[in-house]
Amino acid sequence: MELNCDVLRRPLRGVIPPMVTPLLERDTLDAAGLERLIEHILGGGVHGLFVLGTTGEAPSLSYRLRYELTERVCRQVQGRVPVLVGITDTSFTESVNIASKATEAGAAAVVLAPPYYFPAGQAELLEYLRHLTPELPLPLFLYNMPSYTKAVFEPQTVRAAADISGIVGLKDSSGDMAYFHQLQPLLKDHPDFSLLMGHEELLAEAILLGGHGGVCGGGNLVPELYVELYNAACSRDLPAVEALQKKVMQISTTIYSVGRYESSYLKGLKCALSCMGICGDFLAEPFHRFRCAERDVIRRHLEELGIVQRD
Amino acid sequence: MELNCDVLRRPLRGVIPPMVTPLLERDTLDAAGLERLIEHILGGGVHGLFVLGTTGEAPSLSYRLRYELTERVCRQVQGRVPVLVGITDTSFTESVNIASKATEAGAAAVVLAPPYYFPAGQAELLEYLRHLTPELPLPLFLYNMPSYTKAVFEPQTVRAAADISGIVGLKDSSGDMAYFHQLQPLLKDHPDFSLLMGHEELLAEAILLGGHGGVCGGGNLVPELYVELYNAACSRDLPAVEALQKKVMQISTTIYSVGRYESSYLKGLKCALSCMGICGDFLAEPFHRFRCAERDVIRRHLEELGIVQRD
Amino acid sequence: MELNCDVLRRPLRGVIPPMVTPLLERDTLDAAGLERLIEHILGGGVHGLFVLGTTGEAPSLSYRLRYELTERVCRQVQGRVPVLVGITDTSFTESVNIASKATEAGAAAVVLAPPYYFPAGQAELLEYLRHLTPELPLPLFLYNMPSYTKAVFEPQTVRAAADISGIVGLKDSSGDMAYFHQLQPLLKDHPDFSLLMGHEELLAEAILLGGHGGVCGGGNLVPELYVELYNAACSRDLPAVEALQKKVMQISTTIYSVGRYESSYLKGLKCALSCMGICGDFLAEPFHRFRCAERDVIRRHLEELGIVQRD
Amino acid sequence: MELNCDVLRRPLRGVIPPMVTPLLERDTLDAAGLERLIEHILGGGVHGLFVLGTTGEAPSLSYRLRYELTERVCRQVQGRVPVLVGITDTSFTESVNIASKATEAGAAAVVLAPPYYFPAGQAELLEYLRHLTPELPLPLFLYNMPSYTKAVFEPQTVRAAADISGIVGLKDSSGDMAYFHQLQPLLKDHPDFSLLMGHEELLAEAILLGGHGGVCGGGNLVPELYVELYNAACSRDLPAVEALQKKVMQISTTIYSVGRYESSYLKGLKCALSCMGICGDFLAEPFHRFRCAERDVIRRHLEELGIVQRD
Repeated sequence: MELNCDVLRRPLRGVIPPMVTPLLERDTLDAAGLERLIEHILGGGVHGLFVLGTTGEAPSLSYRLRYELTERVCRQVQGRVPVLVGITDTSFTESVNIASKATEAGAAAVVLAPPYYFPAGQAELLEYLRHLTPELPLPLFLYNMPSYTKAVFEPQTVRAAADISGIVGLKDSSGDMAYFHQLQPLLKDHPDFSLLMGHEELLAEAILLGGHGGVCGGGNLVPELYVELYNAACSRDLPAVEALQKKVMQISTTIYSVGRYESSYLKGLKCALSCMGICGDFLAEPFHRFRCAERDVIRRHLEELGIVQRD
Repeated sequence: MELNCDVLRRPLRGVIPPMVTPLLERDTLDAAGLERLIEHILGGGVHGLFVLGTTGEAPSLSYRLRYELTERVCRQVQGRVPVLVGITDTSFTESVNIASKATEAGAAAVVLAPPYYFPAGQAELLEYLRHLTPELPLPLFLYNMPSYTKAVFEPQTVRAAADISGIVGLKDSSGDMAYFHQLQPLLKDHPDFSLLMGHEELLAEAILLGGHGGVCGGGNLVPELYVELYNAACSRDLPAVEALQKKVMQISTTIYSVGRYESSYLKGLKCALSCMGICGDFLAEPFHRFRCAERDVIRRHLEELGIVQRD
Repeated sequence: MELNCDVLRRPLRGVIPPMVTPLLERDTLDAAGLERLIEHILGGGVHGLFVLGTTGEAPSLSYRLRYELTERVCRQVQGRVPVLVGITDTSFTESVNIASKATEAGAAAVVLAPPYYFPAGQAELLEYLRHLTPELPLPLFLYNMPSYTKAVFEPQTVRAAADISGIVGLKDSSGDMAYFHQLQPLLKDHPDFSLLMGHEELLAEAILLGGHGGVCGGGNLVPELYVELYNAACSRDLPAVEALQKKVMQISTTIYSVGRYESSYLKGLKCALSCMGICGDFLAEPFHRFRCAERDVIRRHLEELGIVQRD
Repeated sequence: MELNCDVLRRPLRGVIPPMVTPLLERDTLDAAGLERLIEHILGGGVHGLFVLGTTGEAPSLSYRLRYELTERVCRQVQGRVPVLVGITDTSFTESVNIASKATEAGAAAVVLAPPYYFPAGQAELLEYLRHLTPELPLPLFLYNMPSYTKAVFEPQTVRAAADISGIVGLKDSSGDMAYFHQLQPLLKDHPDFSLLMGHEELLAEAILLGGHGGVCGGGNLVPELYVELYNAACSRDLPAVEALQKKVMQISTTIYSVGRYESSYLKGLKCALSCMGICGDFLAEPFHRFRCAERDVIRRHLEELGIVQRD
């Protein structure tokens, strides 16, 4: 476990894809697909791996499966990059339980969105964090995800949280860049605090304007694209940024935009991975995989994007 | 367990309070308080008991504690009234797990709101129910709770669900009486399907206009009030209904309305039970009990309502 | 104008339909249709007429047309019932202008929802009312319509508003019966303050539990149905209430529920009036009348309801 | 009027501040303040002026005052920059009326958000635009402002709208940069279509990644700051961008963030202009100017920002 301390540089920088969870059935991991997926992602030169987030369908998985996944991932990654494990839960105790398993497995950090059934106020969120962090053996990243959790980590709450020992960063999936920009001056006394962008469409500008990295779902498919974009933005190579940003938007407006469903992002991502032969497209309930017609559309998009070969 | 089949009349009618979960600490039941609370509620003549709902803070509790609570409640109730157990969860598998424990414990039915992290569409909700019911050993009540779950069981979905074997009723906590009234004609071919009102403020009109019962949080405090109101409404005694409705609204606008918090209902309810000497007022995170000033206000309200004696 | 004072009994009680605005074109009244519609509604024994509300598409109409409508309606009604005129606007000055025209025309009262572009806070709403009422020559009804105006008149704001000279009632179109019930005890010192229910589906229970009347859109189609329901509820004739409520729900789940549009209520209502030969179905932009297929569905519903004869 | 055609380059590029409307009273322009404000803004080198937007409190103003303002502004600007006039209204006819006055006054273009009382669907919005544009004598900019209008111009709707003759651009005030990025590939066949960013906090990244300009409220206070930022972003001078972006965020997190009100942006802006001696701080109802305590905070912020001298 000493390895973890080494691999978690602070601030954490770079591309940390939120891994999808390959499933054979509702409560059965696709172990072979998982291995292929991990190697595919790491092969793209990413800087970390985030499991059991929203993209990982964590809330839909049994605890047993979440533990199994965490163990398998850490075992296979073997410290090549830091593994971040989502511990978001409506129950404080269960969050601690997952964190404990993540520690045993060798994860580098844990990630927590607000409890998402009862909508907590800001003071309650801060108290929650103050009570939780002493029980966590790993550094904690906050996860701002208001559309799913009904609660925002407001800027002043993030500033106060950055003073709590053990809280080392924030992943913002609000899609609200003004919020992201507000955080930076508030955190100027915490140069080690990572600001990570949760929307891949906003990675470029986040990095250009002072962010540290991105949690890019498309990193499951073409991890090298996001790594290149991250590098281009870090080195202020704006022509490269523009060209790569176009590709990012193409993925976003094709693969993630089939059907009219809230879940089109998740379905499109898993369907594409299946078309690429990496892992199956089974989704945990309440969602279901795309049917043939939509799968054909995804396949065509992948061909146009040059991600899979035309038949 | 045969007893259960006997006690669950169909349609289930009457007052079925959603029990608060007495806690000593975050993960420790207040066992003595729980015993007092159960006897207090049953002493009011209620027709059922619903544990592990929103009022029971179920999503904030560990699974271990949820199981312990279910067992203790069923053991003490001993079939005097049907016990309904909430199995709402974001994970299909965990819902099945709780239902299985509830069956072992001797519960009469289970209650399910939509999975509340990913917002499912209507077709997905219906498929969810079709997959879930065969795995449940007990009859299932739907729980419509859009403000917390982000998903509505739309009227046509309820009608379709009523055709699924094992689904026996719906508790509506939307607060939308037009929705409630829309359900009745749609369910006219299912006379055994229970329509239960989740807001005690709307119990009277729900019963007057064809509903079967109510899940009244105030039933933790003064169960007999809601039973009387239910009886008055059943017997079309409108003067009594009006008088009792006034008392119901008095509780609603005093005990549940202290502070500005989303959680004022839960905090007020537990604080009042503590003032009454029934159980402690510890709340599971992310919430916290009222402080002294607010507790004094609650106590004064209870005195004015005649629920506790003036000092 | 003295007539107005006579016709506005306080509290205003009964059924006050929100009249649709018959149009030939975007900015042209259907004057003949308007005459027929007024006589049709008054023929049903209603207790008032509300023009330029949401059902009247007021915000979509030019001021010129709003003035013309107000004059024509008042002239034709001739004091048979009180005419209430909507003055809701985002501009204080324009609200005063419409109120002034309404006074000249002979209206009995005006009706105001919160300004609906900028979301005002409660203190701002109250100050708005304090500034506005001295400029209004007619009594004012508040109009609670949060889904369209983004602002609620919260119960304590209504209580404070009831103390302002000139404010005589509230029409609640929130659909939230618990809100409606909360208002009653708060207004117990204002027995002249009218509480009117804005959802016809909730008219029965509003009257049974202490409300004074209802603003029923279906009163454009079958005014006598809502008058009968109102009378049955007033006289506590519950079997009649139940039978009539069924018809009300039938209209609500058929005529108002064609298509998937937010606007299905408005489109259905105008389409039905057109099928009944009362007035045309032209809608002001941004909406448009139903096309043939939907019109056929509405016609069939009207036949099944016995409102129009089968061909 | 031929001048207008000259001044409206396509695509319109640069900084086009949304001017506040200086008022002496509810329905009285502050004519002297207006003159000072216009010269102050134009003195900063801006590329256009947008009146009667949200910042201009247009929906709260009487039509008479909107016309007076339009005339005064156009007369004073005298074609130095293009004047854009907001015609957003809930009534189609009134939008046409304002556009007609704007044309007479010599405006260069008009700006329209969706009608904001009834929430129109996408097909209805598109039909609205198809009906409206033939009646407008000036080019039209769309104004995406979902938080206030309840309706989004979805990307496919914008693409279709770009094909309508007379529609020349879009101002996006959604705050959703992913939406902004989605528009660009959809509009690649319309190189003349302006994409303007409505949030000054996002101006830098909008320009860096292909946008044409920004509608910056802070341009009322320190127009040269936004012009410099725009120029730095155009010339890809990232160190300058970062330094200027910091100042932009400082204004945003101080001047616009006093009090807890939805209206803190508007109140802060007008209060600051008053402290700077440019125009009064009277706000149209439903809002009200800051009181002394808040004004002192604004003044101190202005001093710290170096915008006004310390006493």
